[in-house]
Amino acid sequence: MKNSIGSSVILTLFGESHGRAVGAVLDGMAPGIAVDEEFIAHQMELRRSVAALSTPRRESDRVQILSGVYEGKTTGTPITFVIENEQQRSADYKKSSSVARPAHADYTSFVKYHGYADPNGGGHFSGRITAGIVAAGAIALTALAAKGITVGSHIASLAGISDRPFSIDPQSEIKALSSKAFAVLDDSAAEAMTVKILEAKEAGDSVGGVLESAVCGLPAGVGEPWFDGLESVLARAIFGIPAVKGVEFGSGFALAGMNGSAANDPFLVKDGKILTDTNHAGGILGGISNGMPLIVRTAIKPTPSIFKAQRSVDLERGENAELRLVGRHDPAIVHRARVVLDSMIAIVLCDQLCLRFGTDYLMP
Amino acid sequence: MKNSIGSSVILTLFGESHGRAVGAVLDGMAPGIAVDEEFIAHQMELRRSVAALSTPRRESDRVQILSGVYEGKTTGTPITFVIENEQQRSADYKKSSSVARPAHADYTSFVKYHGYADPNGGGHFSGRITAGIVAAGAIALTALAAKGITVGSHIASLAGISDRPFSIDPQSEIKALSSKAFAVLDDSAAEAMTVKILEAKEAGDSVGGVLESAVCGLPAGVGEPWFDGLESVLARAIFGIPAVKGVEFGSGFALAGMNGSAANDPFLVKDGKILTDTNHAGGILGGISNGMPLIVRTAIKPTPSIFKAQRSVDLERGENAELRLVGRHDPAIVHRARVVLDSMIAIVLCDQLCLRFGTDYLMP
Amino acid sequence: MKNSIGSSVILTLFGESHGRAVGAVLDGMAPGIAVDEEFIAHQMELRRSVAALSTPRRESDRVQILSGVYEGKTTGTPITFVIENEQQRSADYKKSSSVARPAHADYTSFVKYHGYADPNGGGHFSGRITAGIVAAGAIALTALAAKGITVGSHIASLAGISDRPFSIDPQSEIKALSSKAFAVLDDSAAEAMTVKILEAKEAGDSVGGVLESAVCGLPAGVGEPWFDGLESVLARAIFGIPAVKGVEFGSGFALAGMNGSAANDPFLVKDGKILTDTNHAGGILGGISNGMPLIVRTAIKPTPSIFKAQRSVDLERGENAELRLVGRHDPAIVHRARVVLDSMIAIVLCDQLCLRFGTDYLMP
Amino acid sequence: MKNSIGSSVILTLFGESHGRAVGAVLDGMAPGIAVDEEFIAHQMELRRSVAALSTPRRESDRVQILSGVYEGKTTGTPITFVIENEQQRSADYKKSSSVARPAHADYTSFVKYHGYADPNGGGHFSGRITAGIVAAGAIALTALAAKGITVGSHIASLAGISDRPFSIDPQSEIKALSSKAFAVLDDSAAEAMTVKILEAKEAGDSVGGVLESAVCGLPAGVGEPWFDGLESVLARAIFGIPAVKGVEFGSGFALAGMNGSAANDPFLVKDGKILTDTNHAGGILGGISNGMPLIVRTAIKPTPSIFKAQRSVDLERGENAELRLVGRHDPAIVHRARVVLDSMIAIVLCDQLCLRFGTDYLMP
Repeated sequence: MKNSIGSSVILTLFGESHGRAVGAVLDGMAPGIAVDEEFIAHQMELRRSVAALSTPRRESDRVQILSGVYEGKTTGTPITFVIENEQQRSADYKKSSSVARPAHADYTSFVKYHGYADPNGGGHFSGRITAGIVAAGAIALTALAAKGITVGSHIASLAGISDRPFSIDPQSEIKALSSKAFAVLDDSAAEAMTVKILEAKEAGDSVGGVLESAVCGLPAGVGEPWFDGLESVLARAIFGIPAVKGVEFGSGFALAGMNGSAANDPFLVKDGKILTDTNHAGGILGGISNGMPLIVRTAIKPTPSIFKAQRSVDLERGENAELRLVGRHDPAIVHRARVVLDSMIAIVLCDQLCLRFGTDYLMP
Repeated sequence: MKNSIGSSVILTLFGESHGRAVGAVLDGMAPGIAVDEEFIAHQMELRRSVAALSTPRRESDRVQILSGVYEGKTTGTPITFVIENEQQRSADYKKSSSVARPAHADYTSFVKYHGYADPNGGGHFSGRITAGIVAAGAIALTALAAKGITVGSHIASLAGISDRPFSIDPQSEIKALSSKAFAVLDDSAAEAMTVKILEAKEAGDSVGGVLESAVCGLPAGVGEPWFDGLESVLARAIFGIPAVKGVEFGSGFALAGMNGSAANDPFLVKDGKILTDTNHAGGILGGISNGMPLIVRTAIKPTPSIFKAQRSVDLERGENAELRLVGRHDPAIVHRARVVLDSMIAIVLCDQLCLRFGTDYLMP
Repeated sequence: MKNSIGSSVILTLFGESHGRAVGAVLDGMAPGIAVDEEFIAHQMELRRSVAALSTPRRESDRVQILSGVYEGKTTGTPITFVIENEQQRSADYKKSSSVARPAHADYTSFVKYHGYADPNGGGHFSGRITAGIVAAGAIALTALAAKGITVGSHIASLAGISDRPFSIDPQSEIKALSSKAFAVLDDSAAEAMTVKILEAKEAGDSVGGVLESAVCGLPAGVGEPWFDGLESVLARAIFGIPAVKGVEFGSGFALAGMNGSAANDPFLVKDGKILTDTNHAGGILGGISNGMPLIVRTAIKPTPSIFKAQRSVDLERGENAELRLVGRHDPAIVHRARVVLDSMIAIVLCDQLCLRFGTDYLMP
Repeated sequence: MKNSIGSSVILTLFGESHGRAVGAVLDGMAPGIAVDEEFIAHQMELRRSVAALSTPRRESDRVQILSGVYEGKTTGTPITFVIENEQQRSADYKKSSSVARPAHADYTSFVKYHGYADPNGGGHFSGRITAGIVAAGAIALTALAAKGITVGSHIASLAGISDRPFSIDPQSEIKALSSKAFAVLDDSAAEAMTVKILEAKEAGDSVGGVLESAVCGLPAGVGEPWFDGLESVLARAIFGIPAVKGVEFGSGFALAGMNGSAANDPFLVKDGKILTDTNHAGGILGGISNGMPLIVRTAIKPTPSIFKAQRSVDLERGENAELRLVGRHDPAIVHRARVVLDSMIAIVLCDQLCLRFGTDYLMP
């Protein structure tokens, strides 16, 4: 499948950072879903940047829909999103040297594609390709919301500064996050994080962080055993996002240090519904949703593009070389990646819900 | 795909813990690979247990190969492994109550399969189904070894006790691990971990841990961008293994707290080969192997079966209930999961190598 | 996918003609379907032979179910069928020479698997592997029947002798066929066909034929556009069956010679239901079912194993050679292939129905 | 996969007949293949029409490539083709009534998509969507040609007029066809066929036909057993093309009436190469190529749009109605479908070759 993911609802990505366009095809989405262009634009805006914190690349990121929408509603056939690159082939990003940028895909792409890949700005490996995920994700989020399923992510930590975690019922927290440009639950954390980003910017360096995502309203019984469990399919999707190096569900790595008696979430009946008292499992048991909020945390490495001098290798000459980047680069992408995560999770869940309940399930 | 994974080399799992048999079909493995029944038996033995630490269930776990092997070599057509359940439907595991075991798949399986799933010993969600992974993995590990690619895992931590991490070139460490029943790099850690397991056993409780896996010899340029990147396909496979709640590559979650200048692995040329000075990336950039050792860490939650009383729900009556387990249950599975991880990683890499270099690549 | 087919309901085949066993894994079938062992045995018997017409190989063809069935009902997890080969490695089929049998897969398998494939009796390419299709198909046919969907095939022609075609509403014809060992609508055709088969047997030659299959009760709106249309997915499955060289839907190749005004089936409303007056489309428009009976015709080439001397090539010596087969070989397989077709079609339709309406759709 | 096909080389289609655009994404094509825009334009022109015979819809059909090509060569990442619809939402095609057109997908699309599909000109079910196949196919044909593999199709019959069939070595015939706008081997057949098309046009009716396709130079040993055999994957792809109702390989349905002694192609060694004396198998045995020319014949039903009055049903009112089409419609599409077939076959073979020999196989 390569640049595609999903079985019933299928996302296919295309484009290069400084080619003509980036975009996506979303196939299998149910017919009749209202396409809210303002919401798409809002999501694209969240992905782009927060003034002062991010790269000043100011693409308008207007999403053109070439197919799959008729009279403002999805048709059920493939929806094609195209976002043109306005700063196409600009001098700033034009790859002027054959020195591989550390922690980027320059070297691995060079080996895999034998030097034919578009090298400018990371080409097909650029974070810019996530614009297609966000455009498609806007439809997926709309469809889920109509079913009472909401998705939200916050910056659990950035450069060592922590936000407070989601509560056991994060429904209202998800709602609050949707209007925030810098997604934290505790606003004082935002200030401290912003300081860290600006410090890194000043130093020509970069920072990473952890995003915590929650899904509320997902019915129990969704997901398949073994390799199509929710953890498997979500992790596959999330690790597809550039810079992700770790994924954990519920209490994740912390569970490894707990005893079973503390880690096992007790079941209980409340108002005729089966719940768990704690949610160390993150809403998933045996790969299948248990009706509790789905919780996933994603580690984002620091942006690889930094202005400090770096040791590297000239791929054409095959010899050691020093690299000094110029141009515009984000000192952090964690706060921008948040909407990519929401979108990716929403698309995967649409797929799982349609596999489970049929292709009409998401119809209004 | 559900219980199957892979595109060129495809694993399909089947069976229930106390049904007639568990097993696997491995399709697409190259022809001509010698099938070493002793090595298969050795791997199965590693999966079973370490005396005194684990459940005394003593299945002989003899692997029968029903197809795909002719005159001791793989034919290229589907290989079917069957491991019969000798303690089939035994009283100890016979589900005597309809109270869901916390942290098991009892409840989610009940919802998904409407009560029709085999409930004994976890049925199809049991760790016993990993026997099929290990049998198939033995062929995959043999095939990779012939290409100079080795895979090994050690217990990075268990109940808070840490082993030392893999060195930057773990080739000899992988070799040393292959003969150890309790896989640690620092033998003194083994003793302390064993004490913790026995303490948990005594207390009727259980412990979890983290496994660190390494792959040496993987050529650069393997993996696809986006959703078929090595991190994506490995994470999908690893999260399929029961009790896994976290997966990280290279420095993983620790990268989230580092600066780019520290996290970026500098490239350098050494003896005409391109390497990196550090390996925070875990051998993967842009989803594609860079020729450095592939490093992945997996969080295993504590075994959900404990003997302490637990609060839960009776699924048939729909009311709160107390659960007291009897029978035989492991206080830890981390040390047994290690060979499952090696196997799963090997199968995924065989698939990726054949996708990249063709179906004959693994031929001797 | 290779030896697997399906997305929601997935069939995987394994085995060799004279290895230990042949069989199949059927994953994704809904839970709660009653498994009728007598019906399975009946279907297996239909596949085996008709006395006097077929090879006297008398395997008992007992189907063992290793997983996925609990207390007589499907669990929803993978169902594994194993049929042991009793005449395993028998002298009659033991490949004694390296001369490729014309019209068999000996040569192509030799090239693809570099000589490692099991050569006896065709190995994995043998028609015997269809036993797994029939075993799995029995469950699929049972599940469909409970939804009012019936599948049946008859020998439309054999060695030039034609049966009458299905009528426009073949429901009762399908029912009548289910109890016939030699599946024709017009019993006088059976006699003439039998004569042809016996003549071919006498002459050491073989004959082929065309099977016409019908599905009644399939709801409208099933299938996807383009590459997952019903014609696409059924043709992929049917061409997987050995000896199939042609597949046509509705009036098929005859449509190529018709005018649009004759070929277009007029729609009409009858008792509040939309039907077509004729059924040249075979129940499929745009890849999607229209509620009319689905009609597909399948061309089966004459059995490649004949006793007449044949010119061929010795694969090891690389030189021309004459081939004279011994042993037991069918002069015709058309009458046996009929139950394979019913089974294959049923499995594909289960997959399509579950993709369309969800994984619980086939639950009783 | 729905609107996608392939495992290593993957085609995804999108668009509606009178939406903004139609197009395709081609993922997994090897890097370094020269993209010949003139050849693409030539192929698009072949698909459009032959003056006087076809619909006067004169879209310029200019193919825009949005991604996956850098400095005139493929990069190895997804190639996106967009063909804008110039006559978008034109009055002629604007669906003015809710009467289902017989033999079109109007009714089945209505049921599946609950009335939300774009109804104009057939929407996503229109033959216009094949423009994306032809654009992508041009790259595939170029890549194959560089490996000595050529693909060509001719009109074997149209409205009862037959062309002569391909000879046993059709290499030069394929070459001759590539420059013909109306693809026949025997030019006198072209005249008779043209007369038939014009007669049908005059009568407000339409005609169908059979296309015969050949592939030369395909190496032996390509394809997988059972469900990924070449017949299976090609038939799945070809039945995806609108109006296709039958597919046969080699002598196809005619084989059903032959004896084995006549149908079995004798092997022979010639100049050190293994060939067959006849080619009833159409180059495929056991789903795997045998090195002989691959031969496939495709039945195309008469164009469903005719000007004669037709009986049908008004989908909104649920009652019988008479339909009289206006606008521009082809009396035949067989001659235009030929380049679609060549393209589709080429894309499938690229996929199979890369699965077999690796993702670099098609590199120049």
